[in-house]
Amino acid sequence: MPPRPTGLSRRTLGTLGLLAFVAPRPAGAQPASEALPSWKPSAARQAIIDFVEAVTREGGPDFVPPPARIAVFDNDGTLWCEIPTVQFEFALDRIRQMAPHHPEWSTTEPFRTALKRDEAELAALGSRGIMELMLATHAGSTPEAFEEEVNAWLSTARHPKFHRPYLTTIYQPMLELLALLERNGFANYIVSGGGIEFVRAWSERAYGIPPQRVIGSSIRSVFRFPQGGQPELHRLAEMDFIDDGPGKPVAIGKFIGRRPIAAFGNSDGDLEMLQYVTAPPGRRLGLVVHHDDAAREVAYDRQSPIGRLDRALDQAPVRGWSVVSMRQDWSTVFPPL
Amino acid sequence: MPPRPTGLSRRTLGTLGLLAFVAPRPAGAQPASEALPSWKPSAARQAIIDFVEAVTREGGPDFVPPPARIAVFDNDGTLWCEIPTVQFEFALDRIRQMAPHHPEWSTTEPFRTALKRDEAELAALGSRGIMELMLATHAGSTPEAFEEEVNAWLSTARHPKFHRPYLTTIYQPMLELLALLERNGFANYIVSGGGIEFVRAWSERAYGIPPQRVIGSSIRSVFRFPQGGQPELHRLAEMDFIDDGPGKPVAIGKFIGRRPIAAFGNSDGDLEMLQYVTAPPGRRLGLVVHHDDAAREVAYDRQSPIGRLDRALDQAPVRGWSVVSMRQDWSTVFPPL
Repeated sequence: MPPRPTGLSRRTLGTLGLLAFVAPRPAGAQPASEALPSWKPSAARQAIIDFVEAVTREGGPDFVPPPARIAVFDNDGTLWCEIPTVQFEFALDRIRQMAPHHPEWSTTEPFRTALKRDEAELAALGSRGIMELMLATHAGSTPEAFEEEVNAWLSTARHPKFHRPYLTTIYQPMLELLALLERNGFANYIVSGGGIEFVRAWSERAYGIPPQRVIGSSIRSVFRFPQGGQPELHRLAEMDFIDDGPGKPVAIGKFIGRRPIAAFGNSDGDLEMLQYVTAPPGRRLGLVVHHDDAAREVAYDRQSPIGRLDRALDQAPVRGWSVVSMRQDWSTVFPPL
Repeated sequence: MPPRPTGLSRRTLGTLGLLAFVAPRPAGAQPASEALPSWKPSAARQAIIDFVEAVTREGGPDFVPPPARIAVFDNDGTLWCEIPTVQFEFALDRIRQMAPHHPEWSTTEPFRTALKRDEAELAALGSRGIMELMLATHAGSTPEAFEEEVNAWLSTARHPKFHRPYLTTIYQPMLELLALLERNGFANYIVSGGGIEFVRAWSERAYGIPPQRVIGSSIRSVFRFPQGGQPELHRLAEMDFIDDGPGKPVAIGKFIGRRPIAAFGNSDGDLEMLQYVTAPPGRRLGLVVHHDDAAREVAYDRQSPIGRLDRALDQAPVRGWSVVSMRQDWSTVFPPL
């Protein structure tokens, strides 16, 4: 194993209250209409404001009591930039970091390609090769050690296009939306196709969402209490659950046990979650983030190199989901540095 | 399928705020020493009070910030009476209710024995037969329909010895403990060997613990959105996860993602959870409920008919866990009717 990198743990950072990018919460109630400064006037912004006002108006026909005010957010492409996939960048850097302890990797696939880091060859690895890289870099330690590895990496890694730390390639308008919902009694959950413990390592700091409100894909862990050792969890190189597509409503049922009333996504992996959340009678909100801003982010959902990722966009008008155009509807994309 | 019984849903009851048995919370702070009226002076009671005061004392050496104040409770035998196993009683009653639609059950095991309900023959079914009965009675519907079935049953079923509804065979002293912790900024979780959706159906009403803070054993669910139908989860007759023994720390890692600082259990199924929670440095609390009250409850943990269930009791003095004697240390066992 490589030496354990140092870095502030999630617990330490959470303790310090470093929820750096979430707007401070005013003591009094703020009108919903003033709560989304980075959202230009648009149908999507109005739909959010109307929804929040409707479900919080006591005595109103759409009132929802606070315990049932649950909102679910996809992460990649909905709360932060997913091009490149941050967790895969982490895996590639980990491979390089671990390589001195694995001389065989220089000639063994998929590690050879990961070390070479050629875009086209990486893309040709396919899901099986990518899974092998993810398992090799995510397993073999305790959750606490893995959390430190993730945070150590985040403290130095930079986004290749925007040259800023990944925790600042989150979307400022979505931070305002999270804060608006939380101020109005919502519990915000992340329901990510990404790794549950990868996201938990920093979600509280970046979004104000604590680990127990992060749901994601997972590898298996086992409990170990060796003679002379300590009782710990140990992360195995085996998949446990893929939290994507139809897996998202299944995971919501398992982790939350209550159907949310609002869902936010951007891609086909969020389609079933949006359907599940918005179908029942009663006031519901579904929103799809449309990646059409080539200048300030990346325009890709209607024109992805790996095929179209826009079934959720296609279904939006039919199902009454709002679509937010990043290019037209957001005055800012990322928070100020 | 049998007709769906009517009954108030968890959502309805939660909305009405019917947390009937939880002591009302005073507006001001209540000294921890006054918060456990059903606990007689004892080492266990003092350990609880000292722990709460230590981890909430700002600036003190054992201070723990609120987000890390997580407490985990076993359910069966820790928060409510587990003799008989309530969920198995539910299954047996469901078998009887479903039997008219399954004429083959009168001659097929384990259903024949379940319908006959002979104690000795039921005990001889073994874990495989019991699992078959559980799956047959817990699957095949949506989570919402299952929740209604559980609550309809609870509204009429009575404990065979105490002749009171099962939601009143919860332990009054533990309700006071839950309320004390919650008032002091803790998030209380149930980590049950019982079914996650069985417990979620009533945990908020009985304990003030919402569904998203209930972890338990689970069957698999799948997402379905049939043409012309609605997007729903569907419960399959397949086990997903057994939340018992070493499974409890694994489930805590998966659902909470943060190691709790207090654990409450009563049996061997809680041993690993107690070990996992109390091992790290820093102030921790482990407590074992000792079932030694033959008059007011059942005396069984040191003398169980199915073998000794007292490894947690044996380890308590070695690991610094408190043991509460139900007979000696609790002035009341169940809440007033």
